[in-house]
Formats: sequence, structure tokens, C-alpha cells
Amino acid sequence: MTLTDSPLDFFLETREHTENICRPLEIEDYVVQPIVDVSPPKWHLGHTTWFFEEFILKPHASGYKVFDEDFSFVFNSYYETVGKRVIRSDRGNLSRPSVDSVYTYRAYVTGAMKSLFTTTQNQELYNLLEIGIHHEKQHQELLLTDIKFILGNNPLLPSYSDNFKEHPPENTAQEWISMEEGIYEIGHNTDAFCYDNELGRHKVYLHPFKISSNLITNLEYIEFIEAGGYQKFDLWHAQGWDWVNQNQISAPLYWHLIDGVWYNYTLNGLKKITPNTPVTHISYFEAFAFAQWKGCRLPTEFEWEASQSFFPWGKRWEWTESAYLPYPNYTKADGALGEYNGKFMVNQKVLRGGSVATPIRHTRPTYRNFFQTDLRWQYTGFRIVK
Amino acid sequence: MTLTDSPLDFFLETREHTENICRPLEIEDYVVQPIVDVSPPKWHLGHTTWFFEEFILKPHASGYKVFDEDFSFVFNSYYETVGKRVIRSDRGNLSRPSVDSVYTYRAYVTGAMKSLFTTTQNQELYNLLEIGIHHEKQHQELLLTDIKFILGNNPLLPSYSDNFKEHPPENTAQEWISMEEGIYEIGHNTDAFCYDNELGRHKVYLHPFKISSNLITNLEYIEFIEAGGYQKFDLWHAQGWDWVNQNQISAPLYWHLIDGVWYNYTLNGLKKITPNTPVTHISYFEAFAFAQWKGCRLPTEFEWEASQSFFPWGKRWEWTESAYLPYPNYTKADGALGEYNGKFMVNQKVLRGGSVATPIRHTRPTYRNFFQTDLRWQYTGFRIVK
Amino acid sequence: MTLTDSPLDFFLETREHTENICRPLEIEDYVVQPIVDVSPPKWHLGHTTWFFEEFILKPHASGYKVFDEDFSFVFNSYYETVGKRVIRSDRGNLSRPSVDSVYTYRAYVTGAMKSLFTTTQNQELYNLLEIGIHHEKQHQELLLTDIKFILGNNPLLPSYSDNFKEHPPENTAQEWISMEEGIYEIGHNTDAFCYDNELGRHKVYLHPFKISSNLITNLEYIEFIEAGGYQKFDLWHAQGWDWVNQNQISAPLYWHLIDGVWYNYTLNGLKKITPNTPVTHISYFEAFAFAQWKGCRLPTEFEWEASQSFFPWGKRWEWTESAYLPYPNYTKADGALGEYNGKFMVNQKVLRGGSVATPIRHTRPTYRNFFQTDLRWQYTGFRIVK
Amino acid sequence: MTLTDSPLDFFLETREHTENICRPLEIEDYVVQPIVDVSPPKWHLGHTTWFFEEFILKPHASGYKVFDEDFSFVFNSYYETVGKRVIRSDRGNLSRPSVDSVYTYRAYVTGAMKSLFTTTQNQELYNLLEIGIHHEKQHQELLLTDIKFILGNNPLLPSYSDNFKEHPPENTAQEWISMEEGIYEIGHNTDAFCYDNELGRHKVYLHPFKISSNLITNLEYIEFIEAGGYQKFDLWHAQGWDWVNQNQISAPLYWHLIDGVWYNYTLNGLKKITPNTPVTHISYFEAFAFAQWKGCRLPTEFEWEASQSFFPWGKRWEWTESAYLPYPNYTKADGALGEYNGKFMVNQKVLRGGSVATPIRHTRPTYRNFFQTDLRWQYTGFRIVK
Repeated sequence: MTLTDSPLDFFLETREHTENICRPLEIEDYVVQPIVDVSPPKWHLGHTTWFFEEFILKPHASGYKVFDEDFSFVFNSYYETVGKRVIRSDRGNLSRPSVDSVYTYRAYVTGAMKSLFTTTQNQELYNLLEIGIHHEKQHQELLLTDIKFILGNNPLLPSYSDNFKEHPPENTAQEWISMEEGIYEIGHNTDAFCYDNELGRHKVYLHPFKISSNLITNLEYIEFIEAGGYQKFDLWHAQGWDWVNQNQISAPLYWHLIDGVWYNYTLNGLKKITPNTPVTHISYFEAFAFAQWKGCRLPTEFEWEASQSFFPWGKRWEWTESAYLPYPNYTKADGALGEYNGKFMVNQKVLRGGSVATPIRHTRPTYRNFFQTDLRWQYTGFRIVK
Repeated sequence: MTLTDSPLDFFLETREHTENICRPLEIEDYVVQPIVDVSPPKWHLGHTTWFFEEFILKPHASGYKVFDEDFSFVFNSYYETVGKRVIRSDRGNLSRPSVDSVYTYRAYVTGAMKSLFTTTQNQELYNLLEIGIHHEKQHQELLLTDIKFILGNNPLLPSYSDNFKEHPPENTAQEWISMEEGIYEIGHNTDAFCYDNELGRHKVYLHPFKISSNLITNLEYIEFIEAGGYQKFDLWHAQGWDWVNQNQISAPLYWHLIDGVWYNYTLNGLKKITPNTPVTHISYFEAFAFAQWKGCRLPTEFEWEASQSFFPWGKRWEWTESAYLPYPNYTKADGALGEYNGKFMVNQKVLRGGSVATPIRHTRPTYRNFFQTDLRWQYTGFRIVK
Repeated sequence: MTLTDSPLDFFLETREHTENICRPLEIEDYVVQPIVDVSPPKWHLGHTTWFFEEFILKPHASGYKVFDEDFSFVFNSYYETVGKRVIRSDRGNLSRPSVDSVYTYRAYVTGAMKSLFTTTQNQELYNLLEIGIHHEKQHQELLLTDIKFILGNNPLLPSYSDNFKEHPPENTAQEWISMEEGIYEIGHNTDAFCYDNELGRHKVYLHPFKISSNLITNLEYIEFIEAGGYQKFDLWHAQGWDWVNQNQISAPLYWHLIDGVWYNYTLNGLKKITPNTPVTHISYFEAFAFAQWKGCRLPTEFEWEASQSFFPWGKRWEWTESAYLPYPNYTKADGALGEYNGKFMVNQKVLRGGSVATPIRHTRPTYRNFFQTDLRWQYTGFRIVK
Repeated sequence: MTLTDSPLDFFLETREHTENICRPLEIEDYVVQPIVDVSPPKWHLGHTTWFFEEFILKPHASGYKVFDEDFSFVFNSYYETVGKRVIRSDRGNLSRPSVDSVYTYRAYVTGAMKSLFTTTQNQELYNLLEIGIHHEKQHQELLLTDIKFILGNNPLLPSYSDNFKEHPPENTAQEWISMEEGIYEIGHNTDAFCYDNELGRHKVYLHPFKISSNLITNLEYIEFIEAGGYQKFDLWHAQGWDWVNQNQISAPLYWHLIDGVWYNYTLNGLKKITPNTPVTHISYFEAFAFAQWKGCRLPTEFEWEASQSFFPWGKRWEWTESAYLPYPNYTKADGALGEYNGKFMVNQKVLRGGSVATPIRHTRPTYRNFFQTDLRWQYTGFRIVK
């Protein structure tokens, strides 16, 4: 973040946007955690606030008084450097602090940040601020997907809001984009913000490939289901096949077959499946099996980055075949911020792009998202390569 | 319940008392379920309401319109007869129905009950009403112990209320009450309400025994701890010893050793242990080990019932050595109400008495409570026999 | 055991009988442990030997040299008093000591015992010897049931031996034996050997009951299956119903439905079910559900003991409704032998009688066997009461 | 395999070598399975035999009579194409077929193969034979590591054999080998045998790196331990840190600290650690943490393959940073042999090189081994890159 922006405005906008996401919720919706991957919205509100308090206000705002000493224990996510914390699976067991006091905490920290940045401007603080803002934007996306999980697994299937649009159609015909063999440059190379896992701009050699211009749609995915894709072991990884059978998976998450018609739960409530919408809420295992069935494969993250300027993206996070690994010359930052990315670089897959839940100004062509191969609660999708 | 009482008043009082118990709660406190044995307060409010709707209004109130068809799925506890239900461990994952709509549901059903009992009086309905009232009273006790668990496991350790007294002292000296050998009659034998598991008044032969006049106190229990009671395998059942080691148990539930001083979480917040208070929140395994250490044993439920008129009781539910089994000639009721007691008569222990959380007019000398041997979140205690 | 017997002969006969049980085995059969409840035959051979070494030879045979110091770690079962041990679930992971060296160990200890009892005779030693012999006889029964489990869960279903008869028919018609109300004396009262859990002869008051003269047969049990007994939740305890569903139980252990005909694995190999044979390999849960279905119940252990002289028994261990609890005035022995029975007196059910696998001179009318309610690998059966 | 070799001799040598590996075992050692990753030696003997019977004799030897129809169920490993099978974790529960009958099975199949290849020679059969031989060689390595696990986890710590040498010293000084930036060719490119996962010779672009000439030794690893490497969370992946804590890992597998001195179990029994020997039996997580501690990293599999001609290798399988993924243009074979590699290409790491347990003529510079990141029972090691 350069000094010519108005970083404080960007910060305040971000804070406000987070709260706007939560506006349609009942207080009860802020509290629950149906699975370990999903955090209570209240926790996201507190954790993003704690991040600014812990990494900016405590070390840099002289005279700053911590809002509540116990909150560090409650709202630390995974920073071993910073001390003990509530174990992740217990977040949904905490009725206190109340939603009200979490909002008070937010206002208190936002106010202290405003004071600090009104009186003090230096590059180190701006760099920390920028990380904090992007951190909160990541949680904005998680807020939406976690809210969807909380409401979409409730037997009453309540709607979140009529305003959120999660069903962008693929309006153009599927085409194959041909990419030539050769050396490509991969990784971030501008002055704009990026995470450490995008750095280490480097060369990769790509063999020729053709990548699909469109994401796979619901219609195409229903063909896979109807062709028995979930019953054919030879399309799946051994681990994926176990996952299908142990969890009795037979369709994407949130899909319901009612009297022979496919519906899916959306943030607007339960709706009929729309054929031309990119399929979403599928695991890497399912994306891989679909590609096998088509006689194709998933792109690597390098193929994706090299070709991304030739197709539209941003509706779904796109599974790639690439494992989440450090780039050449990757180095972890010192201290707590070094825990941001590096310690997760094993046994996960890279996703590229962005989704309908991604806040504006948050993603970019070099952004590397990552999840375990069985997770489905994000707005995931995929395109294929041959 | 006989027609000379005012059953409707009793019903309305009970309904109101349930809501009074919840009055000090924040909305968030109604929602969470930190362990499977503890239900969200919201669920108790809905379930006790559903019980009247399902067993009285639906079959007996002509023209009654169900409040919400989905609520049966949400608020059925374990009645297989009545259909599918949310699995117990998922109760804390439900943010909806909201607390507000559960209160609306309560008012709706209470109103419909009032109408029904104003216009219709017959013994069958009164019998069902009586069961429903006592059922709700059982949940009043669970509400208090579940609220205690929810708040007492929160890192902020919030107080529930300054008004609730859970620390009755033992003011008199411990004495041994001698009981003579012979035949005693056991079981309910009046016209007043009781559960089916108390019926089948029958004879048992008791050998001579001496029973302690007082419950074991915190002071006595601390002596057991300090004598290494939790480290001596020979005091414990094999299963109890595994439980101690796997869960690293070294004190009653809610006890904290802070700078060498014992505190316990109470519904009034964290307090220093008071020596003359009966110990509570201990498992059967712990009660048994303490008795072994004293060279004594726990009373059977028959010994307890035969001698109960000679000592005060009602502060703590008292663990007995008796397994929870049917009395001679026990028969299960037909239909859903037959699931109330009988199907739990295996691998549990009987508790006798009542506790500070037991509503008035709810317990009696023949009342049989029952829990698994490792559970501690009730106000359990014990006396000993030699 | 009195001095007029020949205790040494009894000992030597017992040792030889244990080895005879193992004679039909392949070496491989001695080693495996398919479930935690089943021990490898090799382990039984070593453990019964270690018992004599640990409790008689080490303390009482001057100059006795321990066969191998490591064997105590390997062959201790559950005696916390005696020190560390291989955890139970790991017994099947041990290929060494070899079968051959276990037999050498047996011969060594048997020889040392022979020397000791040839030179030394006193009542204390005889008492220990008697416990050791009865301990080994208990393991003879377990050897047979564990061998059956090992072979009966092998896909090749090998036969153990053609000589072992496990299918005694019920030759006489089922009758109801009426027992009168009154006081009965329960517990051991002769000079002959018994375990500590049978002691404390005491009075119980029994109400009138009728007990079936015969054990329930395969034919009667098939009627229960065909009447949908495994699908009717109201016949089962809640815990039993969970057990049925989680384990997909639909018949006794070892039963196979092949082309519409019921077979069962026996120690003579896979055989057609014989109708008049007492059903066996059923859990307490199944015995209880059958009794419910008949409108009857299981006897208590007191009813069984009071009436046992009026019917034949000894073919199947018989499930009772009684929880395994101490008799009045029960006291545990000091030291390791005090761990024999007392520490298991919780959450188990009493079985009475004996089975085709019980060695002669081992059971008696007051003998109390006990198992958890879901276990089926013993030769269990039941009769009913109304 | 070309026709100028003597494929039948190569087959017979391989079969004999497998049996020689088992020669020092007691019969009991053939049967047990202490953890799910380790198979009983008996199973390896049967499975490698079943492979020839299933894929060569049944389809290609006219008139071939299957040895025992049940063996396919027992000895199939993971081929879904071929039918049902004993689940992997149950292999150690099978006492039958006996070791003796497995050897008879081996002789029967070896004989039938000899007849077939004496009378019939064609390239298709030779190709299948070659896969079968290499398959058996892979199991020779697993036999040694599984035998080590079986004996090394036995409390008696028996020696396997004095002849097996697992402790090759690193005799030369550690040096850094510098590799230049540029395009390298990766993958198999000769006519000799290789697995499908090595095919698809392709280009990769490597940035400059320096790779250590020697494997990390016990001495270096002890420095890591003594520097508190197992206690420093920032050296570990989040998943690795959980693994360390949940399993209380503080040293490589088979290491014992006795009176302040490090010993390790080897196939020659328990021995003092030798300082200049390459460390082994460490997980990927440990290799990664060590490299972090040194300020270095693990090589990718491409870096390893590009530089392997400049250093000696073959003592330890070497962990790389590379996830196990398909090469460009990888295609799975049809039918059962297509299950050999492809379905495991997710959530595993590539190992390169070979080990003291690898049979001669089995590995090569392009060979890709693969295991989950927490496994340690192979002879794993690593070198580092900066």
C-alpha cells in the first residue's frame, strides 16, 4: 500500500463491509459451528479485530489499553507465537463474549486504529495495515461461506438475503484455448500487495496444452452424475473413493433431489438448479473424477496463471492439480506473520481465481488459495485441460 | 393429579417458572451445546412445548393447528414412535428457529392448552397434563445444570445470577443411623403422581446397615484428594481408573486450583470452596472410590429408601450402588410414553433424593433418577454406609 | 481345597488339559487377536503359567529362578499391583515369545510347582494353588471361545476338531416352573472352593415367578428373527438399539444365511442350524429383546439361584437381568488377588450356569460369571421368566 | 524385458530371493500386523504369488487350475477391478492359510509359470512377467521393513539376522554441489523397464541450487534433537506439529534413549547409534523441520533427478519436497494394472533413490517412490538444498 492511497479510508471501508455482511443475521446465527472448518460469524468479527489489536495497536500505539485481556485467548486462530488459544473445534461452544460486546470491541479497535493512523504515518505501519486489511477481506469471504453452511445445514433452510447473487451464468460457448510450449514467468511482480506465497517470481517450462474457456456447468455435472460417475471407482483416487463411500457422497454439497428434480440451497434459499451456472461446492476429488471421465485433466496452477488472461474468471475458486508448495526461494517472515502461509504448505491443493464471495480488490492473477482435497464449503469450481 | 387441584394453574405456573429460569440469559447462551449431554436452553424451551403439542393438543384438541410442521423434527428428543429427529449431538448446530420464535411457539401452545383445559375436563387429559408438567419440571432441572455447564466452560466464567443458591451447608455433625435387618416395602404407594419406574411396590430383604446422616462435604473430599485418592488404582473400578487416566481427572467438575487454593465455578461465578458444603459434580466412580478409601460403601437404593426418613435430603442427587433396573412386575406403557423410562434400564446407576436445582413438588422418597457412571454435570453428591 | 484331595494331581491334570485344548491348532492359530476381547491362545498358555510363577513360585519357592524376566511384562493381564504390562489390544501384535518357548516356559513352571508341592505342604500354599487351578480353568473356557472366534472369522472357516460337541439338544418340552414368594438364601455356603464374589451368604426376598424349564432354542429364536425382532425398536433398550444399528446386527454371532437357509459356524466347521439346540452367541441386548417380544423377562440372578435345582443347566451361560454388584458384606482381598473380581463390578451383567466349554469341576449353583451387555463370543444363552 | 535376457531365470531368482528373505523367521513372525501399514510376511508371500496367478496364469495359461478359489479374497491388495478382498487392517487377524500352505501355493504357481514360459514366448507375456517380477521386488523391500517393524516393536527386541547390513557409513565430507539454471529433461527414456509414473519424459526449468553431496547423518540429527528441534513449533508444518504432539515424537522410529545414550533397533538387534551413518526412519515432517532448522530446504524431485549423477545414492530413500503428481501426458493403463500407481497420486510425497532394503536391479535415477508424510517404517533419509 503506497502512501498515495488513502489507507485509512480503505481500512474503514473494509471494517464496514464486514459488518454489512453480517447485517441480515439473527443473533443466534453468529454463534454456531456445525463443522470444525466453519467458524461462528461472531468469531470472525472478533478475530479480525484481534489481529489489528495484536499486531498493530499493542506494539505500535503508545498508551493503548487492551479491550479485554481474555479476548486474546478467545480470538487467536492459530498463531503459536502469540500464545494459548481456544481449540478450533470449541469455537461454537462459546456463548460469550456476546455479539453485542464483540461489536463494541470492533468499534473500540477501529477507533483506536483511526487515532493511530491519523497521528502516525510510516511505511512499516502501512505495511502492517495492508496485511490486516487483506486478512479481514479473506475473512469476509469465509464469513459468507460459513454463513451459508450454518443456514444451509439447518432443517428450516432459511434464506440469508435476496440481494446476494451467487449464480452467474456461463453465457458463452465452451472453447479450447491453445497454449504454446515454452518458458513462462510465474509469481507476483508488481508493487501492489500480495502474500508471501506469491513471491519468488520464477520460470517454469510448460508443455503445450488446451484449456477450457468456461467453467464446468451444472448441466455438464449432472451428465456426470447420470453417467454413474459417483459409482465408478476407476475415475477416482483411492483416497477419493474412500471419501465418497464413507460419506455417501452422490452430488455436490447443498444439492437435494426432490421428486426427481435437482435443487440446491443458495444464500437466497432453496432453488432449482440452473443449468448454465458453473457448478460449485465440489471437492478436488470430484473435480478430478469429472476430468478423468471426460478424458481430460485439471490444469496445474502454472498453466492456469499462464493462460488466465485469455478467459474470464472470478466466479468460482478453481481447483488445480498443483499441490500447495513453496515457490523457489520462498522464505517465511519472522515472528507471528511467518505463520500466515508457510506452515500450511503440505497436503493441500492450490485453487486459483476468486469467487462470487471474494471481496473486490482482493484477488489477482497470482493469488494462491489452498484447501484440503475433501472440502466443499467454499464456492469451488473448475475448468479442464487436454 | 386429582380434579380437586387446579391443574391448569399448576401448568401455567410451571410454564412461567421455566421462562424465569432463562431470564438471566443472553440470547447467545440459548444456542450452544458444549458436550452431547448438555442441550441448548432454546432446545429445552422448545422440546417441553412440543411435548404438550404432540401428546395432548394434536390428538385431543379438535381443530388445533400445528405451529410449525418442522418443529417436530427439531424438538423431538428420543421418541422413535413419533418419527425422525435431529440427532442429539447436532442440537448445538441449529441457530434457527430463533429464540424469539421459540418463545412465540411457547406462548402459542400455552394458549392452546389454556383453551383446551378451560373447555374440556376429563381424567385422561389430566393424566397426560400431569406427565407433561412433570416432564417440564425435569427439564427445569436440566436447564439449570446445562446453563451451568455452558457458562462454567466458557473462558470468561460469567455468572448466571446472584440469586441462585447452590451451596447449602451441612450444619449438623455427621452421625451413623443404624437400620435393622428385615423386610422393607419399596416403591410408590399413594395416589399422587409418580413415574412408571417407581411402581410395583414390592418387598426387599435388607441386612443390618449404618448410613451416614450427612452428605460428604467438600472438606472431607479435599482430604481424599490430598491423600492421593486419584492416584491409587486399588480404590477404583477398572473402568473408573481408565476414565480417570484418559480424562486426567483430579478433582470434581468445575474445581480450579489457583495458587494452591481450591475454587469452584458456581452459578454465582467463581468462588472459593466452602468446606461444609456437600461436595457436588462428582461421578459415580469418584463417589465409589471415596467410599472405598473410607472403608465404607455406597448405599443401595433400597437402603436409601428404607432409611430416608431419618435424615435430611434434597440438596444433592445421591449416587447409590444400585444399577437402574425394573422393579418386579414393571410394565412399559404402550406407545410413545412407554419410551419414557424403560428403554434406559441398562448400564446406568440410580440416584435418589433431589438437588438444589430440583423444582419444588417434583421429587419424593420413591423418585428414581439415573445417569451413566461417568457423568458429573448434575448436582450429584453421596452419603456412605458401613 | 482340602488336604485329603490330591491337589498336585488336580494341578497336573489341569495343566495337561489346557495343552490338550490347543493340540488341534496350527502354530499360526496361537498368535492372532481379531478383536480386543479375544486373546491369542499363546497368551493364555503363558498367562496361566505366569500366574503360578508370580503368585506362588516367586514368593514361596526358595531359590526359584524366574524363567525370563521379560515374560512378566508380556503375560500380566490386568494386575496393576504387579507392574507394567503389554496393553490388551497389542497382544496379537507379538510374534515372540514363540509358541515353542511358551511351551518350554509351561514345562519349566509346571516342574518347579511339582518340586515345590512335593517338598512343601501347607494350607496357605494349597489355597493359592486352588485359586491358580481355577484361574487356569477359566482360561480353558476362554481358550475354546477365543479359538472359535479366530477360526470362525477366518474366510476359510476351518474346523477346529470333530470331537468337540457344542450342540446339545433340548430333548424335553418347555414347561413353566412356579416358585413361591418368600425369603431365599443366596451365596456360597460350603467348604468347597468358590470365588470371593460368591461369598456373603445373604437373604433376598423374591416375589412369585415362573421360570422356563428349558433354554430358548434356535427354532424359537428364528421365529423372533422372522417376526422382525431386529427391526422393532420398542423391544430394545435405547443402547441396544444403537448397537443393533451401528453394527448391523440381524442374527446371532456366527450365523450365515445362505440361499435362504441358516447355517452357523461351530468348532466342527460350518453346519446347518439345528432347531432344538439352545441358541447361543447372543448378547444380553438380544436376550432382553426376545423376552420383551414374548411378553416375558429375564430372571434375576437370585431367581435363577433359587430355582436352579428344578431344571437342568450347564449347556450355555445364561444371561440374567441382574447387574454385576457386590453382595452385602463383600470385601476385596488385599494385594493383587483383590483385583480378581471386585474392580469389574460395574456396568456388566451376571450370567449363571456354565456352558459346553466350561471344564468339569469348575462351575456350581452359586458361580457368578459376568460380561458387558454387547458381548457374544461366549457360549451364551438364556431362559425366561413370567 | 527383451528376449535376449533370460526372463525365466530372472523370475526364478526373484522368487527364490523372496523366500530367502523369510528364511530367518519363526512361523509366528509370518502372521502379525502391528500397524495397518505393515503386512504379515505370509501375506506378502501369498500376494506376490496371487499377482502372477491372477494376471498371467488365469488369463494366459490354458487349462490352468486355480490353487484355491478363496485365496483371491485373501491375497488381493487393492485391485477393485478384481473383486472383493480382506480389508487391509484385517490381514493380521488371519491365522489361515497356514505358512506351510502359502509356501505350497508359491511352489504351485512358480511351477505353473515355469511350464508356461517354457512352452510360450511372446512379448505380451514377457511384459506382464516383467511387471510381476518388479512387483515382487517391491514387496521384497516391504518384507524387510515390515519384518523390522514386527520385531522392533516386540518387547523382546529379537534380532532378525546378523548378515543384513543396514548401517552404511558416510565416509566422505559433506560438500555442496552447484547446479546451473536452465531446462532439464525429466523422466524415463530408455528401453529398460520402468513404471508408468516415470513416463512422459518432459522438460522442467530449474533455478540455480546447491545440493548436499551426503545424506544427513545420525550425528547431525542428534544435534537437531539436542537443539530442541522437536520443541520448536516454527520449524514444523502445522500438520507436522500436530503429529509430533499427538504421537509424542521426540526421535526417529526405533531410537531408544537408555541412561543418556542413544540406541536404535536394527535388523541385527539393539545397537548403539553410529554417528556417521545416514539417519533413517524419519518422516517427511522431520526431514522438513531439520532442513528449516539448517536454513535450507529439501530438494524437489526434479532437482534430485537433475543432479543425482554427481553424488552417491541408494542407502536411503530420500524425501523430496515434491508432491506425488502425474507427469505431463501421464495416462493410466486400462484394467487392473491401471490401479498400480495413478490412484495414489494425491496427498503423498515423492521419495527418490533407493535403500539398503532395495533389491538389486530394482531402482534407477527416474524411479519415483511415494509415501504419506507421517510414515517412518521405510529406510527413509534425506539430503538438503540451499
